[in-house]
Amino acid sequence: YGKNTIKFLRLHREGKKHFVKEVEVCAHLRLTSPQEYLEGNNSLVIPTDTIKNIVLVLAKKNGIPSLEEFAIDICNHFMTTFCQVAYVKAYVQEVPWQRLHEDGAPHIHSFICVPDGIRFCEAEQCRNGPLIVFAGIKDLKLMKTTQSGFEGFYKNEHTTLPERHDRILCGELFCKWSYGECKDFDFNCIWKKIRECILEAFAGPPDCGEYSPSYQKTVNCIQMFVLSRVSQVQVIEVVLNNTFYNVVDMKNLGLTNDKEVLVPVEAPYGSCACTLGRKKFFEV
Amino acid sequence: YGKNTIKFLRLHREGKKHFVKEVEVCAHLRLTSPQEYLEGNNSLVIPTDTIKNIVLVLAKKNGIPSLEEFAIDICNHFMTTFCQVAYVKAYVQEVPWQRLHEDGAPHIHSFICVPDGIRFCEAEQCRNGPLIVFAGIKDLKLMKTTQSGFEGFYKNEHTTLPERHDRILCGELFCKWSYGECKDFDFNCIWKKIRECILEAFAGPPDCGEYSPSYQKTVNCIQMFVLSRVSQVQVIEVVLNNTFYNVVDMKNLGLTNDKEVLVPVEAPYGSCACTLGRKKFFEV
Amino acid sequence: YGKNTIKFLRLHREGKKHFVKEVEVCAHLRLTSPQEYLEGNNSLVIPTDTIKNIVLVLAKKNGIPSLEEFAIDICNHFMTTFCQVAYVKAYVQEVPWQRLHEDGAPHIHSFICVPDGIRFCEAEQCRNGPLIVFAGIKDLKLMKTTQSGFEGFYKNEHTTLPERHDRILCGELFCKWSYGECKDFDFNCIWKKIRECILEAFAGPPDCGEYSPSYQKTVNCIQMFVLSRVSQVQVIEVVLNNTFYNVVDMKNLGLTNDKEVLVPVEAPYGSCACTLGRKKFFEV
Amino acid sequence: YGKNTIKFLRLHREGKKHFVKEVEVCAHLRLTSPQEYLEGNNSLVIPTDTIKNIVLVLAKKNGIPSLEEFAIDICNHFMTTFCQVAYVKAYVQEVPWQRLHEDGAPHIHSFICVPDGIRFCEAEQCRNGPLIVFAGIKDLKLMKTTQSGFEGFYKNEHTTLPERHDRILCGELFCKWSYGECKDFDFNCIWKKIRECILEAFAGPPDCGEYSPSYQKTVNCIQMFVLSRVSQVQVIEVVLNNTFYNVVDMKNLGLTNDKEVLVPVEAPYGSCACTLGRKKFFEV
Repeated sequence: YGKNTIKFLRLHREGKKHFVKEVEVCAHLRLTSPQEYLEGNNSLVIPTDTIKNIVLVLAKKNGIPSLEEFAIDICNHFMTTFCQVAYVKAYVQEVPWQRLHEDGAPHIHSFICVPDGIRFCEAEQCRNGPLIVFAGIKDLKLMKTTQSGFEGFYKNEHTTLPERHDRILCGELFCKWSYGECKDFDFNCIWKKIRECILEAFAGPPDCGEYSPSYQKTVNCIQMFVLSRVSQVQVIEVVLNNTFYNVVDMKNLGLTNDKEVLVPVEAPYGSCACTLGRKKFFEV
Repeated sequence: YGKNTIKFLRLHREGKKHFVKEVEVCAHLRLTSPQEYLEGNNSLVIPTDTIKNIVLVLAKKNGIPSLEEFAIDICNHFMTTFCQVAYVKAYVQEVPWQRLHEDGAPHIHSFICVPDGIRFCEAEQCRNGPLIVFAGIKDLKLMKTTQSGFEGFYKNEHTTLPERHDRILCGELFCKWSYGECKDFDFNCIWKKIRECILEAFAGPPDCGEYSPSYQKTVNCIQMFVLSRVSQVQVIEVVLNNTFYNVVDMKNLGLTNDKEVLVPVEAPYGSCACTLGRKKFFEV
Repeated sequence: YGKNTIKFLRLHREGKKHFVKEVEVCAHLRLTSPQEYLEGNNSLVIPTDTIKNIVLVLAKKNGIPSLEEFAIDICNHFMTTFCQVAYVKAYVQEVPWQRLHEDGAPHIHSFICVPDGIRFCEAEQCRNGPLIVFAGIKDLKLMKTTQSGFEGFYKNEHTTLPERHDRILCGELFCKWSYGECKDFDFNCIWKKIRECILEAFAGPPDCGEYSPSYQKTVNCIQMFVLSRVSQVQVIEVVLNNTFYNVVDMKNLGLTNDKEVLVPVEAPYGSCACTLGRKKFFEV
Repeated sequence: YGKNTIKFLRLHREGKKHFVKEVEVCAHLRLTSPQEYLEGNNSLVIPTDTIKNIVLVLAKKNGIPSLEEFAIDICNHFMTTFCQVAYVKAYVQEVPWQRLHEDGAPHIHSFICVPDGIRFCEAEQCRNGPLIVFAGIKDLKLMKTTQSGFEGFYKNEHTTLPERHDRILCGELFCKWSYGECKDFDFNCIWKKIRECILEAFAGPPDCGEYSPSYQKTVNCIQMFVLSRVSQVQVIEVVLNNTFYNVVDMKNLGLTNDKEVLVPVEAPYGSCACTLGRKKFFEV
């Protein structure tokens, strides 16, 4: 077993125009024999340093056309080169560099970091098994200032939460989906489409939005919408880490606060997660 | 499904002497029906706010004699009170407050935070299943300045790592063990004993230490030692996040550096993990 | 002396359209007498809780038309209300929520967090002194993949750095400027203009860029450019925390790496800072 | 101007016994001329890489008998070697490795990280000026569960805080003191004594404690106590970042909570700071 994280930059030039991809790669191996644990016999162990070299060499030779193709490349390399590898997983995450624009003109070699959701992917393979590809987005922070409530929940003697039909819905989204045994996809294009689907399902129509009766239901809406729009997605997991906001009670200060000033409630903060697939439903 | 984190202080007094326990509790529920996801029907949903109240009320009524007993208390409460709960997991983590001492005298109400490894535990139960208890320690940073090497590993054209027989072994340990279906244990006493076993297995005898041929073998030594010394432990998982140190090459600066000045290598940083149980062995 | 941090949301509606501002406010007071420190006499102390209430009440009553106007509002309130306040400073920082767009259409109540540089401001006043306003941007990460070098530096027996004329220039910018005794400015408009100036000075013309002979010179270019373009700025401080990238040496791996694969060098990381004003120059 | 951070390990052996010091060093230089900023002329610039080499070479040659002696060593080196340096400051911070003990026996080469307050120091010098040495402790988290209150404070229409005479006093301390133009001190011994003074002044006598009427007064007590006990200290700055705890109101849950269950209040969190010297008093 081994794991490691490598951060590096892959530069690519077309004429005077530069393209940059900065990624963090985490490769995870399991060997056919645990002899290095039990006997201290290192003869099959592939050092972290060698893993790093391989990842860098692959990036140099083949580039990073998409995170997914790079992750697949890494898996293929380890499976075909090392017969002692029983399982390999490659996780690739992108630093969100975007080309700078000046008055609308794209700059040929300058970039700005815009972390409005981090793209990542994962490819994994067991020896003699299929290569499975996942992709996802994380650290995507979204807020709806209305069209959200929470009512009709279970009540007993420990209940102090009032019902609300016009609260803030705010949270950090993590979405990860599986492409199954993947074929010749345009991963960059599909990823962008799924990101748009997530935003649309979260927010609803631009002119009126759509009422969310709970964080759970919003999670489900995102999943249903992605599955209905993007046929390549087999299974989608969504985790929503909620931030709650309370309307500040200003009665003692002689004021009426009509949902104008709100403070985040640090604890407890909730989280809801669900994994949804085609045909079969399973909740985790 | 629901999850939440609550941080609070539980004070307890015996005469003029104060005892303090500050914990973070994360309760995780799964309901028998996913109707709140699919239909937006909240009638079975137990709000995060109610979960928080229950945790605080249990702490108030029963105190926190040990993290494990408190986690068990939480599981029992949810299972017996809510028939819509299919699964409950309670994670409890301690803020490491220690009593202050002045010239050896313990202070009756003053404490200092000493985070040399964080104690945590987890209790989980499925409806109609057994209650399983885990305990552990995390963020435990250890270093051996000698008696560690890495030799005889697999080599090919991507290998640049030299063999070393006297390197620094340094890392952050995460250990988590299972007590199985747990009985009437003295959890505080067992936890302290296991912590001592981990330190002893990592370091070896105080006067000479013990040679480690790899991070993997050290992980295994810790597991074997705990299993051999503490009969209540059924399975133990150990993760060691390594920090590598390089001896600085000072030849260009006209100096010989006999492993006196070393710099940490930030990336790649490795990690090795293994789960070991009684009778059966399985690696993850 | 007192300081505190308050995070809150200020919502504002125009018809069905929502506007949101989430800010962190840190108010810093100094009293005319230190009697609470020396004698434990609290009679002049304004509790943190009261400071919080005042900030929330001001946000409720006057809104947050710009961070700067809000900070000025806070300073004015403390100076005119409390004769025991000798000095007040209000720091206001914005959570970078941006309106969501769907196919180009702005959403009436949904927002996404886009942290590509954080806007902040500071207003401060001593009793009987002028009210001074600062504004700034922080956590702005920028990169140039070419048009940067570092040559001709001082060399001695401790020098191991080679000269480079085509390196990566990458860093995190902190810029803070003073508006002097400020008048009736359109703070939102000026701030946007300064942000554009910073990006333009960093990157140079979009079609060719501009060569940077050092991080220091780039810092100076940003300052000179802002001072020349924005007359309201009196003094500008710029700090650039550099990230260095090394071209990976792949000779041992049998490959030529023409600045295609680079790794960040974690330590040491440098920083250069400079404060530049009109007429007089002072470096800190 | 230049700054950089270097983290490294300095190993030292006496027979079979190992001693380890891991430090982070931040050297800060200001040059006599700002020509690299204004003209892009690098001829006087000492690269970060060279600064790093010098720090490592000094650690190799002279060791780190105390943080303070090492910081002084760095200042002296830059002042005497580079005539273009107008000002130098060396900040040194320690990673708190402690020797492991097994059944009371010290281990010859194994260490555990115990971050119960981080030791640091700072030495600074202007050309032709004296070398000034500061030392300090930071990230020291302390709590008193009783003997603390806050009463008699200023009240007006924005006051909602009730008076309290038995609250929790909890916070993170930062203390930094000056040794003035420093002589031949036993820095390690003095630092330990000051740490004990801080704890004693915070906590009061072990059998009964001492009542604190405010965070401010506790800050002052710590300062007065250190100044009275440690003659080498000229000026002492203390910052206390408070964590407030609220007794949970359990009336709605049918329970009386006699300060048994408390929750931390995340925002606003206060901070009080004061700098106290001999003879003259100045508050910041």
